[in-house]
Amino acid sequence: MAKEANLSNPTLRQCAVDAACGRRAFDILIEGAIILDMVTGRERQADIGLVGALIASVHAPDPQARANKRINADGAYAVPGFIDTHMHIESSMVTAATYSNIALTKGVTSVVWDPHELANVVGVAGVDHALEEARSARLRILPLAPTCVPSAPGYEFSGGDFDSVVLSDLLKRDMIHGAAELMTMQPLLAGEKRVTDIVNAGLASGKRVCGHGRGLAGRDLAAYAAAGIETDHELTSAEDLIARLEAGMTVELRGSHEHLLPAFAKALLELGQLPQTVTLCTDDVFADDLLHKGALDRVMRILIREGLPVDWVYRAATLNAASRIRRPDLGLIAPGKRADIVLLSDLIDVRVQTVFTDGALAVDNGKLLAPDQSVPCPAALLKTVKTERFTPQDFEVVAQGNEAKIATLSKPRFPQWGERVVAIEGDRLKLPDDMIRMAVVNRHGRHTPVRVAFMENWGTWRGAFATTISHDSHNLTVFGRNPADMAAAANALHSMDGGLAVAKDGEVIASLALPIAGLVSSDPLEKIAEDFTAVRAALDALVDWDPPYLVFKALFGSSLVCNPGPRLSDAGLVDVFEERILESCVLDSYF
Amino acid sequence: MAKEANLSNPTLRQCAVDAACGRRAFDILIEGAIILDMVTGRERQADIGLVGALIASVHAPDPQARANKRINADGAYAVPGFIDTHMHIESSMVTAATYSNIALTKGVTSVVWDPHELANVVGVAGVDHALEEARSARLRILPLAPTCVPSAPGYEFSGGDFDSVVLSDLLKRDMIHGAAELMTMQPLLAGEKRVTDIVNAGLASGKRVCGHGRGLAGRDLAAYAAAGIETDHELTSAEDLIARLEAGMTVELRGSHEHLLPAFAKALLELGQLPQTVTLCTDDVFADDLLHKGALDRVMRILIREGLPVDWVYRAATLNAASRIRRPDLGLIAPGKRADIVLLSDLIDVRVQTVFTDGALAVDNGKLLAPDQSVPCPAALLKTVKTERFTPQDFEVVAQGNEAKIATLSKPRFPQWGERVVAIEGDRLKLPDDMIRMAVVNRHGRHTPVRVAFMENWGTWRGAFATTISHDSHNLTVFGRNPADMAAAANALHSMDGGLAVAKDGEVIASLALPIAGLVSSDPLEKIAEDFTAVRAALDALVDWDPPYLVFKALFGSSLVCNPGPRLSDAGLVDVFEERILESCVLDSYF
Repeated sequence: MAKEANLSNPTLRQCAVDAACGRRAFDILIEGAIILDMVTGRERQADIGLVGALIASVHAPDPQARANKRINADGAYAVPGFIDTHMHIESSMVTAATYSNIALTKGVTSVVWDPHELANVVGVAGVDHALEEARSARLRILPLAPTCVPSAPGYEFSGGDFDSVVLSDLLKRDMIHGAAELMTMQPLLAGEKRVTDIVNAGLASGKRVCGHGRGLAGRDLAAYAAAGIETDHELTSAEDLIARLEAGMTVELRGSHEHLLPAFAKALLELGQLPQTVTLCTDDVFADDLLHKGALDRVMRILIREGLPVDWVYRAATLNAASRIRRPDLGLIAPGKRADIVLLSDLIDVRVQTVFTDGALAVDNGKLLAPDQSVPCPAALLKTVKTERFTPQDFEVVAQGNEAKIATLSKPRFPQWGERVVAIEGDRLKLPDDMIRMAVVNRHGRHTPVRVAFMENWGTWRGAFATTISHDSHNLTVFGRNPADMAAAANALHSMDGGLAVAKDGEVIASLALPIAGLVSSDPLEKIAEDFTAVRAALDALVDWDPPYLVFKALFGSSLVCNPGPRLSDAGLVDVFEERILESCVLDSYF
Repeated sequence: MAKEANLSNPTLRQCAVDAACGRRAFDILIEGAIILDMVTGRERQADIGLVGALIASVHAPDPQARANKRINADGAYAVPGFIDTHMHIESSMVTAATYSNIALTKGVTSVVWDPHELANVVGVAGVDHALEEARSARLRILPLAPTCVPSAPGYEFSGGDFDSVVLSDLLKRDMIHGAAELMTMQPLLAGEKRVTDIVNAGLASGKRVCGHGRGLAGRDLAAYAAAGIETDHELTSAEDLIARLEAGMTVELRGSHEHLLPAFAKALLELGQLPQTVTLCTDDVFADDLLHKGALDRVMRILIREGLPVDWVYRAATLNAASRIRRPDLGLIAPGKRADIVLLSDLIDVRVQTVFTDGALAVDNGKLLAPDQSVPCPAALLKTVKTERFTPQDFEVVAQGNEAKIATLSKPRFPQWGERVVAIEGDRLKLPDDMIRMAVVNRHGRHTPVRVAFMENWGTWRGAFATTISHDSHNLTVFGRNPADMAAAANALHSMDGGLAVAKDGEVIASLALPIAGLVSSDPLEKIAEDFTAVRAALDALVDWDPPYLVFKALFGSSLVCNPGPRLSDAGLVDVFEERILESCVLDSYF
């Protein structure tokens, strides 16, 4: 946020004092609102006088108060702007400007952005671009320095390589708010130098050091916190939530795993109070969900629906967040604080009418004023699909003999190692009827072979899906049964400089172009959402999913090497926790 | 605290991770305690493993855990060290070392010290000495830069003169935690340059800017907060408390005004939750109260007795305080936090057994280990009673004629202007039978005349009391009827280089020497408390007080010029709010 006002400006403060004392007109006076007070939890009628970016006064309604502009907020509720404590803008496939425009209309005025995906594709240039985008957005974007580029060093190859030297350099930049989620859990607990140095660079900066403690419990969780990690959003159960609260961590309840929110709400209700260390985040929101369901406002809506007291939910999204991200100027409607204010027609449904950020009207009765324009995209972020074109042969596994014993990926979402004996036809493995192929190829210029794995329990497929969004290295990843379909889908991405494509019978039947780093499009959100919905629908028609674990979204995380279990990466079949790397899935051949 | 460990030390962190993972022995393992968790509010059995100054692990009891030293805490409660968010060590008349020694045994591990009194006597040298004392103490002392030296510029003359240039310089020092309570309220609200510049220097430093918002309400309170003031402890009612919470201020509920705590407890109970902006402080504790009744622990005890839930009270004293003073390393018993830990035998009575600070055992089963020694006192802080010796004549008011109309101070604690016509005998005013004299003389080298006022409603006096503790300029102040008694008491202070003295029939009958800045003694606390008790008892025998407003303590605040109402200072009879200064109380003479 380039335009964030300096609240230590003496003239600004003097004008605010003068206005509060009645010696000067307020710049803006919001009249008639009911404040939901984040400190007391109570509602009260009060008018809010703004001077520049400051809230100068919050006072009982006073028709005598002078103001250059009066906002009639009769019957509306006033709360502080919402703060999303952990998210990746790239996950919505949009530019920061596009995200800013939609988020503001939802009442979100601040987000803590980890540009982890951009960094994993184009390295420091990705972070630089994120800073440039943050600087130009009206949304208050607090960018973090990604700590896991790649997130499983040695087990995957991404487009960047951030060691502690790179990270220290990033952390020196004023705009960088802290060190982003530390996903390299096992190496950290094992005391490995690279990641330990990275965490220590974060601590030395004096800025926040954020976490990703997937699956950690007991002494592992203690060790993770002892290392200096402050936060976590990777909770998968109420037990996880309580364990992290007891470990003194700031919890970021996330909307991307909506099915867990009821359990979290229940656990908090049982506590009988909202700990000040509970905040809310979105983490990842697909473009269509962002457009149709919302951003952080959606997380709030769900938690209210699940029975959390309304003031708890708003407090988690405002005051708690502000305290934990060390921004005492945010999170309250009170004199001396920064004027990020949301007016709502309905607290339960989080129905946002009007939004002020930094003292300026940003959304007026649902209408976004002066939308942000995307900043020009530097060349480094374009043409990032650095592969050759593909042939069906690229998706075959070559083997000798009659049969082969192979290592398989046996479950989606929570993958396990499997083994299977499969037939060999000619010089290649024959895919059993109940399995599908997954293929990953480095797209960051390494020119390594396409890695192919066979997967069990991934449903029935009648086509192929290719994506350059593939956490966390975002190598080109293809799923399907038929090598011809897979090649068609992959070649579509090659042509589009990245994105998503669905192919059937050798033809591409749906696609979304994401030419910025293979992750993002500068098209309008509506267009991206529409194409994304079409891609999802096309694939849904070709695949019989087996919910709840196996869903479309699972495809994007199936290469998330840093998490427990076997994964396919551009290095082969790998397992960080077992320290295992197989370049080919073939374990043994029988003649 | 010189020895405060750097928690960003990579070796320390690595050792903590190793210990948490079981690869290394803990330095200290606290076994068998019940943790009162400040986040969840729940009690649970857990062992606490320390490595250096870090809490490395908090885990379910595990007899296999290795440790170099085991502490048996069976049946004890474990809570974080208490944090006093606003106090003046000088008010206890002891050195910081003496305060540290007693406070640690009470479970207090951190205090935010405004060395306002030292600064008002000896200026920057007083702050420098405070920093030196803080550096040597085992108690974590976070010194503030005093903002009101003097607290009513132009209406009183103290031994220091801190404008914004001095303040900026102090704020640059690493050890300085923020800008201290801003008492110059009315000038700030009026936009006067000196105090406005001082507040702006605080804001520019990026450190905390603390408040003293006595009597502020409505638009004045809003303006005070809009100026950038974050905190307040000067609440006098439940309405004050709610108003400050609603104004987004951090509230410091203080023990020095014990009679107000029941109303505060009731108001918080009605809120139904403890706002995270509520903290606790002592402000001023006399030596004997400190010894016999306690420090912050006493405030906690009272609030628990008043019905606040136990976990609220401990949270206010720990996690809330840590969050609001921007010390995320404090306030929790959790891995990765600083090991300030208190073990108690009784939560309700706040009965402290054992205390760790910065990972080291400081108090073992009630016994203080390695007491702090007072640091040498520089010459600038000694010989600070720069007056001539006194004669009874110094306490007379000279006037011509038969009668004079005089301005009087008509009430203790909440003073009001009065008028009286009094007789003149010879060349001096005759003191009416129902009144007493108050006299103030500059002791900081200005050599101005002794100012004398007549006071109504201050009880019946049969002797005199002199003190060099006299807020906030700490000029030599004397109360009594008889000029001979007043001269005797004042001369005792002259001889002792400051302190307190009671005289009757021309003789000193009790005294306490405070040779350091006329405020503090390096004697043992027990000795100071005993002498102070004797002084109080001696005066109680000579004065018929009229509680609750008129008590011994009121004498020390009767010259507090920055607060509302008329006051006597070394400049005369003054009223900051009415902008009035009378060098003599004589308004008119009749012949």
